[in-house]
Amino acid sequence: MMMMLRQRDVVEVWKKIQWSAKAFLSSTISPPILDVDFPDIWSKNHHQTHPPRATLSAANRQNAALIDGKSMAEEIRSGISDEVRRMNTSIGKVPGLAVILVGERKDSQTYVRNKIKACEDVGIMSVMTELADNCAEDEVLNAVLSLNDNPSVHGILVQLPLPHHMDEEKILNAVSLDKDVDGFHPVNMGNLAMRGRMPLFIPCTPKGCIELLIRSGVEITRKKAVVIGRSNIVGLPTSLLLQRHHATVTTVHPFTKNPEEITRDADIVVSAAGVANLVRGSWIKPGAVVIDVGTNPVEDPNNEHGYSLTGDVCFEEAVTVASAITPVPGGVGPMTIAMLLSNTLDSAKRAYRFT
Amino acid sequence: MMMMLRQRDVVEVWKKIQWSAKAFLSSTISPPILDVDFPDIWSKNHHQTHPPRATLSAANRQNAALIDGKSMAEEIRSGISDEVRRMNTSIGKVPGLAVILVGERKDSQTYVRNKIKACEDVGIMSVMTELADNCAEDEVLNAVLSLNDNPSVHGILVQLPLPHHMDEEKILNAVSLDKDVDGFHPVNMGNLAMRGRMPLFIPCTPKGCIELLIRSGVEITRKKAVVIGRSNIVGLPTSLLLQRHHATVTTVHPFTKNPEEITRDADIVVSAAGVANLVRGSWIKPGAVVIDVGTNPVEDPNNEHGYSLTGDVCFEEAVTVASAITPVPGGVGPMTIAMLLSNTLDSAKRAYRFT
Repeated sequence: MMMMLRQRDVVEVWKKIQWSAKAFLSSTISPPILDVDFPDIWSKNHHQTHPPRATLSAANRQNAALIDGKSMAEEIRSGISDEVRRMNTSIGKVPGLAVILVGERKDSQTYVRNKIKACEDVGIMSVMTELADNCAEDEVLNAVLSLNDNPSVHGILVQLPLPHHMDEEKILNAVSLDKDVDGFHPVNMGNLAMRGRMPLFIPCTPKGCIELLIRSGVEITRKKAVVIGRSNIVGLPTSLLLQRHHATVTTVHPFTKNPEEITRDADIVVSAAGVANLVRGSWIKPGAVVIDVGTNPVEDPNNEHGYSLTGDVCFEEAVTVASAITPVPGGVGPMTIAMLLSNTLDSAKRAYRFT
Repeated sequence: MMMMLRQRDVVEVWKKIQWSAKAFLSSTISPPILDVDFPDIWSKNHHQTHPPRATLSAANRQNAALIDGKSMAEEIRSGISDEVRRMNTSIGKVPGLAVILVGERKDSQTYVRNKIKACEDVGIMSVMTELADNCAEDEVLNAVLSLNDNPSVHGILVQLPLPHHMDEEKILNAVSLDKDVDGFHPVNMGNLAMRGRMPLFIPCTPKGCIELLIRSGVEITRKKAVVIGRSNIVGLPTSLLLQRHHATVTTVHPFTKNPEEITRDADIVVSAAGVANLVRGSWIKPGAVVIDVGTNPVEDPNNEHGYSLTGDVCFEEAVTVASAITPVPGGVGPMTIAMLLSNTLDSAKRAYRFT
């Protein structure tokens, strides 16, 4: 497996091993009490199991309802727009979102552009800080700290991934807790995990997934849910949030032995593995609800850019088994941006004590 | 269900509902995005399903290996004792643990006494702060703050539960991060939840459970694990820790539809529900490893106190099915205290930069 790791992963893993080894030498308890954190790499095996589509008999076939994230997000954005106008009219203030973009990754530039455009559309002020790929970590930190102190900024978003020479944890932890609209600060994550605690912000994509379920009338309480993927940004907080809604949650990851069988047991499937077509029709229980977070570029000669975006879920297969499913694009994506705007609005309301 | 709630629970739930309602009125997204946090109450149904013991045929019967927490904890404590001596010899300092006890609950007094006794045994200095049940919240807060500033104290432990008029969250959050030997601070919990992050402390009971598994030679990676119960103190952090060890984890709670069936699928079962004999033999997959965190008082006319302690797991049944099991008492309990001492030692080493 080590062969598949990128240079950065190797360095990271090595740092962890050194840490563990050091802890071992100076500790009286077992060294790997907090395991070495190997990167999650989905093995090819998972998505090479092409189930015969014929196993879905004609009698079982159905067409799942489409969960239209685009129009739901539109509705939410329209409500936010009204609220921003009301705020501006009554106290002469609008919410402000600051975005920090380091480097020139094309995908990051697109994401940031979309977020800023979405802000403009609802009347949220946006500030953009662009830094060169080779800038010093301190420059990013200083940008964060100065935005922390800026009273007209209510949300700070550091576009990930950061260049390899930067300590992502250090930079994210520097974002003021009450401007952490991404919800990635460990205090917000801890308060999301702990029962009876209220995080100031819930990460946008997980929040969007739950919002999609709620708006589709899907009951979460008492349901079996499977979350595929355990990233800090999506998989983990989605699992935590589903559990807060009293689902019985299993998180599937690359070390899971029989992901297909486990997933087939779920009433609600949220896939955030980042692997195109990982989840086949045979993974889905008839009647299950499927939320597909994946947006994976796959080669597409018919597309002018040479690729198109596809989800983690093999849509054509799943749509014949599930009772409801999100499309990619047009499902979770628009909802994520709507939640970012919603978090920024909430933050500004809190700052101005505006209700 | 509301009928079964204690006064305090009702107040808590009501506060949450008000919070939700307020959030709803001022929010553009669905009100219950972060669900109302009803208390976990295990219904009688769960443990009234008496499976016929005859279903375990003679051929299937085996006797599980006993996981001897008492002797493993003894070994760890002996190592800690050596380390404390080495520290004292080389820098003239010993670790210090402060315990705050509010009120006169008999069980809390016993727990605290045991912890202090355990400290003495290994040479850790202990400080005890006792406050009256009716003291003001600020008195407890001030006690915490003063211990935060005391350089000879490396661990602060607020014995739970606190009297009903106190805000547990506020008090626990006041404990300095680097003295949070219980690991209950949201930053430590968030860093336990997030991949690639290192909490300063891991909560003692979950850490003890993993330590029992490791010392028993149980492989966790790639195994299916079920954690029964989702308390902030045990269930939640145990699930997070098992997942860090790359198990596929399902958390079972009172809203879980078929806990028996789900648990029977697990290679590793950790029960922390706090319900005597909730987990019957029929819940256990043959050959599974069972860690029983429960210590539930049950009436026992043969006992001089009128009650004895029993686990969540029906031991006599499970021992014939499992491959290994912890007894109650003598399993997780002694390990929890050993982990508290271990966390305190680690904290002192960090404070004095002693390796």
